Amino acid sequence: MKKNLLFLALMLLISIHTMAQQALWGGSEIVSPEINDDNSVTFRLHAPHANQVQLTGDWIPSEGWNPRLVEMKKTEDGLWIYTTKPLESNLYGYSFFVDKMRMNDPSNVYLIRDVATLTNVFIISGGQGDYYKVNDVPHGTVTRQWYHSPGNEKNRRITVYTPPGYESSGKDYPVLYLLHGMGGDEEAWMALGRTSQILDNLIAQRKAEPMIVVMPNGNVYQEAAPGESSLGFVKPTMQLPNTMDGKMEETFMDVINFVESNYRVKQSSGARAIAGLSMGGFHSLHISRYYPNTFHYIALFSGAVFPAEDATSPVYKNFEETLMNQKDNGYQLYWIAMGKTDFLYEQCVELRKIMDRINMPYTYRESEGGHTWDNWRLYLTEFVPMLFK
Amino acid sequence: MKKNLLFLALMLLISIHTMAQQALWGGSEIVSPEINDDNSVTFRLHAPHANQVQLTGDWIPSEGWNPRLVEMKKTEDGLWIYTTKPLESNLYGYSFFVDKMRMNDPSNVYLIRDVATLTNVFIISGGQGDYYKVNDVPHGTVTRQWYHSPGNEKNRRITVYTPPGYESSGKDYPVLYLLHGMGGDEEAWMALGRTSQILDNLIAQRKAEPMIVVMPNGNVYQEAAPGESSLGFVKPTMQLPNTMDGKMEETFMDVINFVESNYRVKQSSGARAIAGLSMGGFHSLHISRYYPNTFHYIALFSGAVFPAEDATSPVYKNFEETLMNQKDNGYQLYWIAMGKTDFLYEQCVELRKIMDRINMPYTYRESEGGHTWDNWRLYLTEFVPMLFK
Repeated sequence: MKKNLLFLALMLLISIHTMAQQALWGGSEIVSPEINDDNSVTFRLHAPHANQVQLTGDWIPSEGWNPRLVEMKKTEDGLWIYTTKPLESNLYGYSFFVDKMRMNDPSNVYLIRDVATLTNVFIISGGQGDYYKVNDVPHGTVTRQWYHSPGNEKNRRITVYTPPGYESSGKDYPVLYLLHGMGGDEEAWMALGRTSQILDNLIAQRKAEPMIVVMPNGNVYQEAAPGESSLGFVKPTMQLPNTMDGKMEETFMDVINFVESNYRVKQSSGARAIAGLSMGGFHSLHISRYYPNTFHYIALFSGAVFPAEDATSPVYKNFEETLMNQKDNGYQLYWIAMGKTDFLYEQCVELRKIMDRINMPYTYRESEGGHTWDNWRLYLTEFVPMLFK
Repeated sequence: MKKNLLFLALMLLISIHTMAQQALWGGSEIVSPEINDDNSVTFRLHAPHANQVQLTGDWIPSEGWNPRLVEMKKTEDGLWIYTTKPLESNLYGYSFFVDKMRMNDPSNVYLIRDVATLTNVFIISGGQGDYYKVNDVPHGTVTRQWYHSPGNEKNRRITVYTPPGYESSGKDYPVLYLLHGMGGDEEAWMALGRTSQILDNLIAQRKAEPMIVVMPNGNVYQEAAPGESSLGFVKPTMQLPNTMDGKMEETFMDVINFVESNYRVKQSSGARAIAGLSMGGFHSLHISRYYPNTFHYIALFSGAVFPAEDATSPVYKNFEETLMNQKDNGYQLYWIAMGKTDFLYEQCVELRKIMDRINMPYTYRESEGGHTWDNWRLYLTEFVPMLFK
């Protein structure tokens, strides 16, 4: 028996790995991004034929809506390099621009999709970023499954986080329904929002109650996220029908019914929370007043408020009366968070005026910045510890 | 109440989307890849400053271990274009090379990671590729969760596919343990192998029995796939300790015990299958003979066979005797699949000689091609229908 055949094969593999120009399996040997001891970050791209390589990243203030680019410097061996100043603890996205063409970092396999754009990411530890990391703590379970929505006459995909210990505890748990924004889907809060990491970390620190987090797809026209339905590898788009015409709100009980008959869930309004960002904040606002006394915790993260003029769904009728009804039914917390430069800021002012006028209690949290995942991750880490106490 | 504020905000969003050079949310407007009616495929990249843009893809025969590149043609507006001949139904990967620098297609968000390399993918319908698509059929549930491995003294991550109907049927199911190759992890069979799609489609066509598929991480040194453990966003590597020194085999009962106490599983050898590719084939071979009468279905996909000379684990001792013991205990199917140009071909010949010598029954399947995911996806679609009949 030739015992050393495998050894030879391994040697062959390693030599292939070393020889292959394209390093098919091992990727390039370049380290990028490299997080230095002082939390500055060094980026590297091997592009010997490029005339210009630029970098954009979340830590660089944008120019209006356009990203600002910084110049990378070329070394003699065709490597382009840039080192940032020390960065605060957070999760950051970045991209390269090679002769004006946007591209991802071939040395970094960690990418997040936002609608139709992929962006490389890294995390700086030592503060807020630690909530977004996978730490050495007990981990919850993340399940992608399908449920039947009679209201939408289709099967739809849902993402569910169950906390550490769920499988064996025999306990019933409270539920946070967590809704994404326009262009998102049932993957958005997982990938962009780092929901399972935030929950694992808050629960491990005993800052949050163990809870189930349900992330449905708010685009009721879709069965599932792009690539996960029979539409195939379609290009994701923000232009989807039925996102804000009442259909999501009208059929939301399909989601709750599925969760409450398939998971060990406390079935009371005091054990239900609903929160969403942007369009998901809009959905949370209208779902929670349309089904009064269903949720005792409500949060709008940079939430849209007012429906389009041509939206005719009964969900949007009697706005003030239904809010007053929701108030009279009682709830524990109505949390409204908004960034100072958010383009929906004025809508939030309008909502608060109405709520003030009818003496409807809420807690207002104003942050720096605007309509960004940076804020929505921050809001989630602040909101979850207030739940189900 | 300013009902049209949201409408204004939406208009603002749409105009941002249109104006923004970088199309932050919507991605570029370029369609690539475009699958044409005759199953030829057109690729497009906007790179006006590039001097040369090339393309490599799975349908282009490689030159030895190096990918072969084809030249794309530049149009007046800086768009580079290439159209293939009509392609057979399959899943294909591809990459661009811009002035010799490898990059992904910025118009295609569908990428698969293989160790440290990301590759764009698309699927051609109408044949084998249909098994890899998400079709309009009932879908199973995919769960990522953590289990405790006493043998490895750590918690480890596992991926579990449960078939459509699992949640409500009350039935017990047979289990396929499906192992990845070197450099892979508990995500490899899901992403590269399209396991949940293949199972959904085979079960829907009644070609396969409803079964649970368990995908553990065969790198016992790792807790989880890169990015999913407390090591953070590390660069994936093939150089991991303890991959083929017996530790995986010795501790495999931790996986089985977890599955059989947390899922509704038929707990008999006739309801257990084990299969793996390359290193996972090696693991399947040694696990199944080390724990005789545990698995009645065994498959090696391009499997490695012989341990390194310095591997001292008791798992690797008494090779022929334990095989004979496995034979005497009986099993339903021992399936060995190998590609004609696979670098492990000779190891497979050696194994078959031994099995022939001891009259140990097996079914041999020789395919075209070599050590590729193209073969391993094919083998999975062929093997699964033979199980648990």
